[in-house]
Amino acid sequence: MENYVFGRNNVIELLKEGSRNVTKIILMKGQHSNPKINQIIELAKSRSIVFQFQPKEKFNQFALEAHQGVVAYVSPVNYVDLEEFLEKPKDGFKKVVILDGIEDPHNFGSIIRTAVCAGFDGIIFPARRNAVINSTVEKSSAGAVNHIDLIMVNSLSSAINRLKDSDFWIIATDIHAKDNYYDINYCDMNFAIIMGSENTGVSSAILKNSDFKVKIPMLKDFNSLNVANAAAIVIYESVKQTIQNSGISV
Amino acid sequence: MENYVFGRNNVIELLKEGSRNVTKIILMKGQHSNPKINQIIELAKSRSIVFQFQPKEKFNQFALEAHQGVVAYVSPVNYVDLEEFLEKPKDGFKKVVILDGIEDPHNFGSIIRTAVCAGFDGIIFPARRNAVINSTVEKSSAGAVNHIDLIMVNSLSSAINRLKDSDFWIIATDIHAKDNYYDINYCDMNFAIIMGSENTGVSSAILKNSDFKVKIPMLKDFNSLNVANAAAIVIYESVKQTIQNSGISV
Repeated sequence: MENYVFGRNNVIELLKEGSRNVTKIILMKGQHSNPKINQIIELAKSRSIVFQFQPKEKFNQFALEAHQGVVAYVSPVNYVDLEEFLEKPKDGFKKVVILDGIEDPHNFGSIIRTAVCAGFDGIIFPARRNAVINSTVEKSSAGAVNHIDLIMVNSLSSAINRLKDSDFWIIATDIHAKDNYYDINYCDMNFAIIMGSENTGVSSAILKNSDFKVKIPMLKDFNSLNVANAAAIVIYESVKQTIQNSGISV
Repeated sequence: MENYVFGRNNVIELLKEGSRNVTKIILMKGQHSNPKINQIIELAKSRSIVFQFQPKEKFNQFALEAHQGVVAYVSPVNYVDLEEFLEKPKDGFKKVVILDGIEDPHNFGSIIRTAVCAGFDGIIFPARRNAVINSTVEKSSAGAVNHIDLIMVNSLSSAINRLKDSDFWIIATDIHAKDNYYDINYCDMNFAIIMGSENTGVSSAILKNSDFKVKIPMLKDFNSLNVANAAAIVIYESVKQTIQNSGISV
Protein backbone atom coordinates (compact mmCIF):
# COMPACT_ATOMS: atom_id res chain seq x y z
CA MET A 1 0.00 0.00 0.00
CA GLU A 2 2.74 2.44 -0.90
CA ASN A 3 0.25 5.15 -1.88
CA TYR A 4 -1.75 5.43 1.34
CA VAL A 5 -1.01 6.11 4.97
CA PHE A 6 -3.72 4.95 7.41
CA GLY A 7 -4.66 5.95 10.93
CA ARG A 8 -4.66 9.12 13.02
CA ASN A 9 -1.19 8.91 14.56
CA ASN A 10 0.45 7.71 11.37
CA VAL A 11 -1.01 10.59 9.39
CA ILE A 12 0.02 13.10 12.06
CA GLU A 13 3.59 11.80 11.91
CA LEU A 14 3.52 11.85 8.12
CA LEU A 15 2.44 15.49 8.10
CA LYS A 16 4.97 16.52 10.76
CA GLU A 17 7.82 14.72 9.07
CA GLY A 18 7.06 16.47 5.79
CA SER A 19 9.39 14.70 3.34
CA ARG A 20 6.70 12.85 1.35
CA ASN A 21 4.15 14.43 -0.97
CA VAL A 22 0.70 14.14 0.52
CA THR A 23 -1.82 14.78 -2.24
CA LYS A 24 -4.95 14.72 -0.07
CA ILE A 25 -6.41 13.46 3.18
CA ILE A 26 -9.87 11.99 3.60
CA LEU A 27 -11.58 12.01 6.98
CA MET A 28 -14.70 10.06 7.87
CA LYS A 29 -17.70 12.28 8.52
CA GLY A 30 -18.79 12.72 12.16
CA GLN A 31 -15.31 13.18 13.67
CA HIS A 32 -15.24 16.97 13.70
CA SER A 33 -14.71 17.36 17.44
CA ASN A 34 -11.94 14.80 17.89
CA PRO A 35 -8.65 16.47 18.98
CA LYS A 36 -6.40 14.29 16.79
CA ILE A 37 -8.61 14.98 13.79
CA ASN A 38 -8.36 18.69 14.58
CA GLN A 39 -4.58 18.38 14.75
CA ILE A 40 -4.58 16.67 11.31
CA ILE A 41 -6.72 19.48 9.90
CA GLU A 42 -4.39 22.16 11.32
CA LEU A 43 -1.31 20.41 9.93
CA ALA A 44 -2.99 19.94 6.54
CA LYS A 45 -3.98 23.62 6.40
CA SER A 46 -0.47 24.77 7.30
CA ARG A 47 0.93 22.71 4.43
CA SER A 48 -1.86 23.60 1.94
CA ILE A 49 -2.92 19.97 1.64
CA VAL A 50 -6.48 19.29 0.54
CA PHE A 51 -8.63 17.50 3.13
CA GLN A 52 -12.17 16.26 2.67
CA PHE A 53 -14.83 14.82 4.99
CA GLN A 54 -16.29 11.76 3.28
CA PRO A 55 -19.13 9.35 4.14
CA LYS A 56 -18.09 5.98 5.52
CA GLU A 57 -18.87 4.20 2.21
CA LYS A 58 -15.80 5.92 0.78
CA PHE A 59 -13.71 3.94 3.27
CA ASN A 60 -15.03 0.53 2.20
CA GLN A 61 -12.09 0.09 -0.16
CA PHE A 62 -9.76 0.35 2.84
CA ALA A 63 -11.75 -2.09 5.00
CA LEU A 64 -8.73 -4.28 5.64
CA GLU A 65 -6.67 -1.41 7.04
CA ALA A 66 -6.72 0.12 10.54
CA HIS A 67 -7.63 3.51 9.09
CA GLN A 68 -9.56 4.98 12.08
CA GLY A 69 -11.44 7.16 9.61
CA VAL A 70 -8.25 8.82 8.30
CA VAL A 71 -6.48 8.08 5.04
CA ALA A 72 -3.66 10.15 3.54
CA TYR A 73 -2.93 9.75 -0.17
CA VAL A 74 0.81 9.85 -0.74
CA SER A 75 2.27 10.47 -4.15
CA PRO A 76 4.98 8.08 -5.33
CA VAL A 77 6.71 10.99 -7.07
CA ASN A 78 8.18 14.36 -6.17
CA TYR A 79 6.40 17.51 -7.20
CA VAL A 80 8.02 20.73 -8.33
CA ASP A 81 6.73 24.11 -7.27
CA LEU A 82 5.58 26.39 -10.11
CA GLU A 83 7.98 29.19 -9.06
CA GLU A 84 10.83 26.72 -8.86
CA PHE A 85 9.93 25.46 -12.34
CA LEU A 86 9.83 28.98 -13.80
CA GLU A 87 13.18 29.89 -12.25
CA LYS A 88 15.01 26.87 -13.66
CA PRO A 89 17.34 28.05 -16.40
CA LYS A 90 16.75 26.56 -19.84
CA ASP A 91 18.60 26.90 -23.09
CA GLY A 92 15.62 27.46 -25.40
CA PHE A 93 11.90 27.68 -24.85
CA LYS A 94 9.88 25.91 -22.19
CA LYS A 95 6.87 23.77 -23.05
CA VAL A 96 4.27 22.48 -20.66
CA VAL A 97 0.98 20.61 -20.72
CA ILE A 98 -1.80 21.84 -18.44
CA LEU A 99 -4.47 19.31 -17.47
CA ASP A 100 -7.83 20.74 -16.51
CA GLY A 101 -9.64 17.93 -14.70
CA ILE A 102 -8.39 14.68 -16.21
CA GLU A 103 -10.22 11.92 -14.34
CA ASP A 104 -8.83 8.70 -15.77
CA PRO A 105 -5.41 7.75 -14.36
CA HIS A 106 -4.56 5.86 -17.57
CA ASN A 107 -5.12 9.02 -19.60
CA PHE A 108 -3.12 11.04 -17.08
CA GLY A 109 -0.15 8.64 -17.23
CA SER A 110 -0.33 8.33 -20.97
CA ILE A 111 -0.22 12.12 -21.47
CA ILE A 112 2.83 12.37 -19.19
CA ARG A 113 4.53 9.70 -21.29
CA THR A 114 3.84 11.56 -24.54
CA ALA A 115 5.04 14.85 -23.04
CA VAL A 116 8.34 13.25 -22.02
CA CYS A 117 8.87 11.73 -25.49
CA ALA A 118 8.19 15.17 -26.94
CA GLY A 119 10.82 16.82 -24.75
CA PHE A 120 8.33 18.88 -22.76
CA ASP A 121 9.44 20.38 -19.46
CA GLY A 122 6.45 20.13 -17.17
CA ILE A 123 2.88 18.98 -16.50
CA ILE A 124 0.66 21.35 -14.52
CA PHE A 125 -2.51 19.99 -12.91
CA PRO A 126 -4.88 21.10 -10.16
CA ALA A 127 -4.94 19.54 -6.69
CA ARG A 128 -8.73 19.23 -6.91
CA ARG A 129 -10.85 17.87 -9.75
CA ASN A 130 -8.01 15.92 -11.32
CA ALA A 131 -6.64 12.40 -10.90
CA VAL A 132 -3.78 12.27 -8.41
CA ILE A 133 -0.48 10.68 -9.33
CA ASN A 134 -0.84 7.16 -7.98
CA SER A 135 0.64 3.84 -9.01
CA THR A 136 -1.81 3.49 -11.95
CA VAL A 137 -0.69 6.85 -13.35
CA GLU A 138 2.92 5.87 -12.77
CA LYS A 139 2.45 2.57 -14.60
CA SER A 140 0.49 4.11 -17.49
CA SER A 141 3.30 6.63 -17.91
CA ALA A 142 5.79 3.76 -18.35
CA GLY A 143 7.96 5.46 -15.73
CA ALA A 144 7.79 8.87 -17.44
CA VAL A 145 6.62 10.49 -14.18
CA ASN A 146 10.27 10.56 -13.13
CA HIS A 147 11.45 12.36 -16.27
CA ILE A 148 9.44 15.59 -16.22
CA ASP A 149 8.53 18.29 -13.70
CA LEU A 150 5.15 17.54 -12.14
CA ILE A 151 3.58 20.75 -10.90
CA MET A 152 0.44 20.44 -8.77
CA VAL A 153 -1.28 23.79 -8.17
CA ASN A 154 -4.19 24.92 -6.04
CA SER A 155 -5.60 27.19 -8.72
CA LEU A 156 -5.18 26.63 -12.45
CA SER A 157 -6.30 30.19 -13.18
CA SER A 158 -3.58 31.67 -10.98
CA ALA A 159 -1.03 29.31 -12.51
CA ILE A 160 -2.03 30.40 -16.01
CA ASN A 161 -1.72 34.07 -15.07
CA ARG A 162 1.69 33.36 -13.57
CA LEU A 163 2.75 31.60 -16.80
CA LYS A 164 1.55 34.56 -18.87
CA ASP A 165 3.62 36.90 -16.68
CA SER A 166 6.59 34.69 -17.45
CA ASP A 167 6.20 34.98 -21.23
CA PHE A 168 4.26 31.80 -21.87
CA TRP A 169 1.60 31.64 -24.57
CA ILE A 170 -1.49 29.69 -23.58
CA ILE A 171 -3.08 27.33 -26.12
CA ALA A 172 -6.37 25.71 -25.13
CA THR A 173 -7.97 22.81 -26.99
CA ASP A 174 -11.66 23.28 -27.57
CA ILE A 175 -13.97 21.43 -29.97
CA HIS A 176 -15.71 24.72 -30.78
CA ALA A 177 -12.53 26.57 -31.79
CA LYS A 178 -12.26 28.02 -35.29
CA ASP A 179 -8.56 27.33 -35.80
CA ASN A 180 -7.22 23.84 -36.25
CA TYR A 181 -4.35 22.73 -34.02
CA TYR A 182 -1.90 22.90 -36.93
CA ASP A 183 -2.75 26.53 -37.75
CA ILE A 184 -0.71 27.71 -34.76
CA ASN A 185 3.03 28.36 -34.86
CA TYR A 186 4.54 26.61 -31.84
CA CYS A 187 8.10 27.80 -32.49
CA ASP A 188 10.07 30.59 -30.87
CA MET A 189 7.95 30.87 -27.76
CA ASN A 190 7.33 29.33 -24.37
CA PHE A 191 3.91 27.72 -24.48
CA ALA A 192 1.37 25.71 -22.52
CA ILE A 193 -1.16 23.34 -24.14
CA ILE A 194 -4.31 22.91 -22.07
CA MET A 195 -6.26 19.65 -22.30
CA GLY A 196 -9.70 19.53 -20.70
CA SER A 197 -11.53 16.83 -18.80
CA GLU A 198 -12.88 13.75 -20.56
CA ASN A 199 -16.49 14.87 -20.24
CA THR A 200 -16.62 18.64 -20.22
CA GLY A 201 -13.41 19.82 -21.89
CA VAL A 202 -11.51 22.91 -20.80
CA SER A 203 -13.58 25.00 -18.38
CA SER A 204 -14.97 28.25 -19.76
CA ALA A 205 -13.07 30.63 -17.43
CA ILE A 206 -9.81 29.07 -18.53
CA LEU A 207 -10.79 29.11 -22.21
CA LYS A 208 -11.46 32.82 -21.87
CA ASN A 209 -8.02 33.39 -20.36
CA SER A 210 -6.20 31.56 -23.19
CA ASP A 211 -4.26 33.21 -26.02
CA PHE A 212 -5.23 30.62 -28.64
CA LYS A 213 -8.07 28.16 -28.95
CA VAL A 214 -7.57 25.22 -31.29
CA LYS A 215 -9.61 22.19 -32.30
CA ILE A 216 -8.76 18.84 -33.79
CA PRO A 217 -10.88 18.46 -36.92
CA MET A 218 -13.18 15.43 -37.26
CA LEU A 219 -13.61 13.79 -40.64
CA LYS A 220 -16.58 11.81 -39.40
CA ASP A 221 -19.49 12.98 -37.35
CA PHE A 222 -18.52 11.08 -34.22
CA ASN A 223 -18.37 12.22 -30.60
CA SER A 224 -14.69 12.95 -30.01
CA LEU A 225 -11.19 11.65 -29.53
CA ASN A 226 -9.87 10.15 -26.33
CA VAL A 227 -8.14 12.99 -24.44
CA ALA A 228 -4.74 11.28 -24.30
CA ASN A 229 -4.82 10.75 -28.06
CA ALA A 230 -5.91 14.33 -28.60
CA ALA A 231 -3.01 15.50 -26.43
CA ALA A 232 -0.59 13.36 -28.46
CA ILE A 233 -1.83 14.88 -31.72
CA VAL A 234 -1.38 18.49 -30.59
CA ILE A 235 1.89 17.88 -28.73
CA TYR A 236 3.40 16.19 -31.77
CA GLU A 237 2.38 18.97 -34.12
CA SER A 238 4.58 21.19 -31.95
CA VAL A 239 7.40 18.61 -32.06
CA LYS A 240 7.23 18.45 -35.83
CA GLN A 241 7.36 22.24 -36.15
CA THR A 242 10.24 22.43 -33.67
CA ILE A 243 12.25 19.89 -35.64
CA GLN A 244 11.48 21.44 -39.02
CA ASN A 245 12.16 24.94 -37.73
CA SER A 246 15.44 24.16 -36.00
CA GLY A 247 16.82 21.90 -38.67
CA ILE A 248 17.93 19.38 -36.02
CA SER A 249 18.24 15.83 -37.22
CA VAL A 250 16.35 13.16 -35.27
CA MET B 1 -21.85 -12.57 -19.94
CA GLU B 2 -22.70 -11.40 -23.41
CA ASN B 3 -19.22 -12.17 -24.75
CA TYR B 4 -19.01 -15.87 -23.97
CA VAL B 5 -21.02 -18.94 -24.76
CA PHE B 6 -20.44 -21.86 -22.39
CA GLY B 7 -20.94 -25.61 -22.69
CA ARG B 8 -20.69 -28.25 -25.40
CA ASN B 9 -24.25 -28.19 -26.73
CA ASN B 10 -24.55 -24.44 -26.56
CA VAL B 11 -21.35 -23.96 -28.53
CA ILE B 12 -22.43 -26.55 -31.13
CA GLU B 13 -25.72 -24.68 -31.58
CA LEU B 14 -23.88 -21.36 -31.78
CA LEU B 15 -21.60 -22.67 -34.53
CA LYS B 16 -24.46 -24.30 -36.47
CA GLU B 17 -26.65 -21.22 -36.25
CA GLY B 18 -23.83 -19.04 -37.60
CA SER B 19 -25.23 -15.53 -37.19
CA ARG B 20 -22.88 -14.39 -34.41
CA ASN B 21 -19.16 -13.73 -34.76
CA VAL B 22 -17.21 -16.33 -32.86
CA THR B 23 -13.66 -15.05 -32.42
CA LYS B 24 -12.20 -18.18 -30.82
CA ILE B 25 -13.03 -21.32 -28.91
CA ILE B 26 -11.06 -22.70 -25.99
CA LEU B 27 -11.26 -26.37 -25.08
CA MET B 28 -9.94 -27.92 -21.89
CA LYS B 29 -6.99 -30.23 -22.45
CA GLY B 30 -7.65 -33.97 -22.17
CA GLN B 31 -10.93 -34.05 -24.11
CA HIS B 32 -9.52 -35.00 -27.50
CA SER B 33 -11.54 -38.17 -27.90
CA ASN B 34 -14.96 -36.84 -26.89
CA PRO B 35 -17.44 -36.93 -29.82
CA LYS B 36 -19.04 -33.55 -29.03
CA ILE B 37 -15.62 -31.95 -28.78
CA ASN B 38 -14.76 -33.48 -32.14
CA GLN B 39 -17.96 -32.04 -33.57
CA ILE B 40 -17.04 -28.59 -32.23
CA ILE B 41 -13.59 -28.88 -33.82
CA GLU B 42 -15.08 -29.87 -37.18
CA LEU B 43 -17.55 -26.99 -37.09
CA ALA B 44 -14.83 -24.53 -36.07
CA LYS B 45 -12.56 -25.72 -38.88
CA SER B 46 -15.33 -25.41 -41.45
CA ARG B 47 -15.92 -21.80 -40.40
CA SER B 48 -12.19 -20.92 -40.03
CA ILE B 49 -12.59 -20.20 -36.34
CA VAL B 50 -9.50 -20.47 -34.16
CA PHE B 51 -9.68 -23.17 -31.47
CA GLN B 52 -7.13 -23.88 -28.78
CA PHE B 53 -6.66 -26.59 -26.18
CA GLN B 54 -5.88 -24.91 -22.86
CA PRO B 55 -4.96 -26.19 -19.37
CA LYS B 56 -7.73 -26.18 -16.80
CA GLU B 57 -6.28 -23.12 -15.02
CA LYS B 58 -7.37 -21.04 -18.01
CA PHE B 59 -10.97 -21.93 -17.09
CA ASN B 60 -10.73 -20.65 -13.51
CA GLN B 61 -12.14 -17.30 -14.55
CA PHE B 62 -15.28 -19.10 -15.73
CA ALA B 63 -15.63 -21.20 -12.55
CA LEU B 64 -19.20 -20.03 -11.96
CA GLU B 65 -20.38 -21.16 -15.40
CA ALA B 66 -21.38 -24.62 -16.58
CA HIS B 67 -18.67 -24.57 -19.23
CA GLN B 68 -17.95 -28.33 -19.52
CA GLY B 69 -14.47 -27.43 -20.72
CA VAL B 70 -15.76 -25.44 -23.71
CA VAL B 71 -15.94 -21.65 -24.01
CA ALA B 72 -16.66 -19.72 -27.20
CA TYR B 73 -15.68 -16.06 -27.35
CA VAL B 74 -18.36 -14.12 -29.15
CA SER B 75 -17.72 -10.69 -30.53
CA PRO B 76 -20.28 -7.99 -29.71
CA VAL B 77 -19.75 -6.54 -33.19
CA ASN B 78 -20.05 -7.62 -36.77
CA TYR B 79 -16.97 -8.22 -38.84
CA VAL B 80 -16.52 -7.44 -42.50
CA ASP B 81 -14.67 -9.74 -44.86
CA LEU B 82 -11.58 -8.24 -46.54
CA GLU B 83 -12.91 -8.98 -50.05
CA GLU B 84 -16.24 -7.43 -49.15
CA PHE B 85 -14.41 -4.36 -47.83
CA LEU B 86 -12.32 -4.01 -50.98
CA GLU B 87 -15.36 -4.32 -53.22
CA LYS B 88 -17.34 -1.59 -51.47
CA PRO B 89 -17.51 1.43 -53.74
CA LYS B 90 -16.03 4.64 -52.33
CA ASP B 91 -15.88 8.16 -53.68
CA GLY B 92 -12.23 8.89 -52.94
CA PHE B 93 -9.40 6.92 -51.42
CA LYS B 94 -9.68 4.24 -48.78
CA LYS B 95 -7.68 4.38 -45.56
CA VAL B 96 -7.18 1.59 -43.08
CA VAL B 97 -5.23 0.86 -39.93
CA ILE B 98 -3.58 -2.54 -39.61
CA LEU B 99 -2.84 -3.77 -36.09
CA ASP B 100 -0.04 -6.29 -35.77
CA GLY B 101 -0.47 -7.86 -32.36
CA ILE B 102 -2.02 -5.20 -30.11
CA GLU B 103 -2.46 -6.85 -26.72
CA ASP B 104 -4.18 -4.24 -24.58
CA PRO B 105 -7.93 -3.93 -25.22
CA HIS B 106 -7.87 -0.26 -24.12
CA ASN B 107 -5.29 0.51 -26.79
CA PHE B 108 -7.27 -1.47 -29.35
CA GLY B 109 -10.50 0.40 -28.59
CA SER B 110 -8.76 3.75 -28.45
CA ILE B 111 -7.17 3.25 -31.89
CA ILE B 112 -10.56 2.32 -33.37
CA ARG B 113 -12.00 5.53 -31.90
CA THR B 114 -9.25 7.68 -33.43
CA ALA B 115 -9.64 5.96 -36.80
CA VAL B 116 -13.36 6.72 -36.83
CA CYS B 117 -12.78 10.40 -35.94
CA ALA B 118 -10.24 10.54 -38.76
CA GLY B 119 -12.73 9.20 -41.29
CA PHE B 120 -10.84 5.95 -41.87
CA ASP B 121 -12.67 3.06 -43.51
CA GLY B 122 -11.43 -0.05 -41.77
CA ILE B 123 -9.31 -1.73 -39.10
CA ILE B 124 -7.54 -4.94 -40.07
CA PHE B 125 -6.24 -7.24 -37.33
CA PRO B 126 -5.18 -10.86 -37.06
CA ALA B 127 -7.31 -13.57 -35.44
CA ARG B 128 -4.30 -14.74 -33.45
CA ARG B 129 -1.79 -12.70 -31.43
CA ASN B 130 -4.10 -9.70 -31.09
CA ALA B 131 -6.72 -8.65 -28.56
CA VAL B 132 -10.22 -9.74 -29.61
CA ILE B 133 -13.06 -7.25 -29.76
CA ASN B 134 -14.73 -7.68 -26.38
CA SER B 135 -16.71 -5.35 -24.17
CA THR B 136 -13.54 -3.58 -22.92
CA VAL B 137 -12.53 -2.78 -26.50
CA GLU B 138 -16.07 -1.66 -27.26
CA LYS B 139 -16.11 0.64 -24.20
CA SER B 140 -12.63 2.07 -24.86
CA SER B 141 -13.72 2.84 -28.41
CA ALA B 142 -16.63 4.92 -27.02
CA GLY B 143 -18.90 2.99 -29.37
CA ALA B 144 -16.70 3.58 -32.42
CA VAL B 145 -16.63 -0.19 -33.13
CA ASN B 146 -20.00 0.28 -34.79
CA HIS B 147 -18.81 3.05 -37.12
CA ILE B 148 -16.00 1.41 -39.06
CA ASP B 149 -15.39 -1.86 -40.89
CA LEU B 150 -13.68 -4.35 -38.59
CA ILE B 151 -11.77 -6.88 -40.65
CA MET B 152 -10.33 -9.89 -38.83
CA VAL B 153 -7.95 -11.93 -40.97
CA ASN B 154 -6.16 -15.24 -40.53
CA SER B 155 -2.94 -13.97 -42.06
CA LEU B 156 -1.78 -10.37 -41.97
CA SER B 157 0.82 -11.07 -44.65
CA SER B 158 -1.81 -12.35 -47.08
CA ALA B 159 -4.06 -9.42 -46.25
CA ILE B 160 -1.22 -6.97 -46.97
CA ASN B 161 -0.50 -8.63 -50.30
CA ARG B 162 -4.20 -8.47 -51.13
CA LEU B 163 -4.25 -4.74 -50.26
CA LYS B 164 -1.20 -4.13 -52.46
CA ASP B 165 -2.96 -5.88 -55.35
CA SER B 166 -5.85 -3.47 -54.78
CA ASP B 167 -3.68 -0.36 -55.08
CA PHE B 168 -3.06 0.28 -51.41
CA TRP B 169 0.27 1.69 -50.22
CA ILE B 170 1.54 0.13 -47.03
CA ILE B 171 3.07 2.38 -44.36
CA ALA B 172 4.65 0.66 -41.36
CA THR B 173 5.66 2.44 -38.17
CA ASP B 174 9.09 1.42 -36.94
CA ILE B 175 11.31 3.14 -34.37
CA HIS B 176 14.34 2.34 -36.54
CA ALA B 177 12.96 3.98 -39.69
CA LYS B 178 14.91 6.80 -41.33
CA ASP B 179 11.91 8.86 -42.43
CA ASN B 180 9.70 10.69 -39.98
CA TYR B 181 5.94 10.10 -40.17
CA TYR B 182 5.38 13.58 -41.62
CA ASP B 183 7.83 13.03 -44.50
CA ILE B 184 5.27 10.87 -46.30
CA ASN B 185 2.57 12.21 -48.58
CA TYR B 186 -0.70 10.57 -47.54
CA CYS B 187 -2.81 12.20 -50.25
CA ASP B 188 -4.05 10.80 -53.53
CA MET B 189 -3.68 7.17 -52.63
CA ASN B 190 -5.32 4.31 -50.78
CA PHE B 191 -3.13 3.50 -47.79
CA ALA B 192 -2.78 1.32 -44.74
CA ILE B 193 -0.90 2.38 -41.59
CA ILE B 194 0.53 -0.56 -39.64
CA MET B 195 0.95 -0.26 -35.86
CA GLY B 196 2.93 -2.98 -34.09
CA SER B 197 2.49 -4.68 -30.75
CA GLU B 198 3.21 -2.82 -27.50
CA ASN B 199 6.39 -4.78 -26.84
CA THR B 200 7.91 -5.81 -30.11
CA GLY B 201 6.55 -3.41 -32.72
CA VAL B 202 5.69 -4.45 -36.26
CA SER B 203 7.07 -7.92 -37.04
CA SER B 204 10.05 -8.06 -39.38
CA ALA B 205 8.37 -10.01 -42.20
CA ILE B 206 5.65 -7.38 -42.37
CA LEU B 207 8.14 -4.51 -42.19
CA LYS B 208 9.96 -6.03 -45.16
CA ASN B 209 6.71 -6.18 -47.14
CA SER B 210 5.86 -2.51 -46.52
CA ASP B 211 6.23 0.32 -49.03
CA PHE B 212 7.21 2.95 -46.44
CA LYS B 213 8.68 2.76 -42.97
CA VAL B 214 8.24 5.80 -40.74
CA LYS B 215 9.17 6.68 -37.18
CA ILE B 216 7.88 9.20 -34.69
CA PRO B 217 10.87 11.27 -33.56
CA MET B 218 11.70 11.45 -29.85
CA LEU B 219 12.97 14.71 -28.40
CA LYS B 220 14.06 12.99 -25.20
CA ASP B 221 15.90 9.74 -24.79
CA PHE B 222 12.96 7.83 -23.37
CA ASN B 223 11.61 4.40 -24.23
CA SER B 224 8.67 5.09 -26.53
CA LEU B 225 5.13 6.33 -26.95
CA ASN B 226 2.04 4.37 -26.03
CA VAL B 227 0.88 2.63 -29.23
CA ALA B 228 -2.58 4.25 -29.25
CA ASN B 229 -1.01 7.71 -28.97
CA ALA B 230 1.50 6.84 -31.68
CA ALA B 231 -1.37 5.73 -33.91
CA ALA B 232 -3.20 9.01 -33.24
CA ILE B 233 -0.14 11.04 -34.22
CA VAL B 234 0.37 9.28 -37.56
CA ILE B 235 -3.34 9.02 -38.39
CA TYR B 236 -3.82 12.74 -37.78
CA GLU B 237 -0.85 13.73 -39.91
CA SER B 238 -2.76 12.07 -42.75
CA VAL B 239 -5.95 13.91 -41.76
CA LYS B 240 -4.16 17.24 -41.77
CA GLN B 241 -2.66 16.58 -45.20
CA THR B 242 -6.03 15.45 -46.53
CA ILE B 243 -7.73 18.62 -45.33
CA GLN B 244 -4.98 20.93 -46.55
CA ASN B 245 -4.77 19.15 -49.89
CA SER B 246 -8.48 19.06 -50.60
CA GLY B 247 -9.24 22.55 -49.37
CA ILE B 248 -12.31 21.23 -47.52
CA SER B 249 -13.37 23.31 -44.56
CA VAL B 250 -13.76 21.57 -41.21
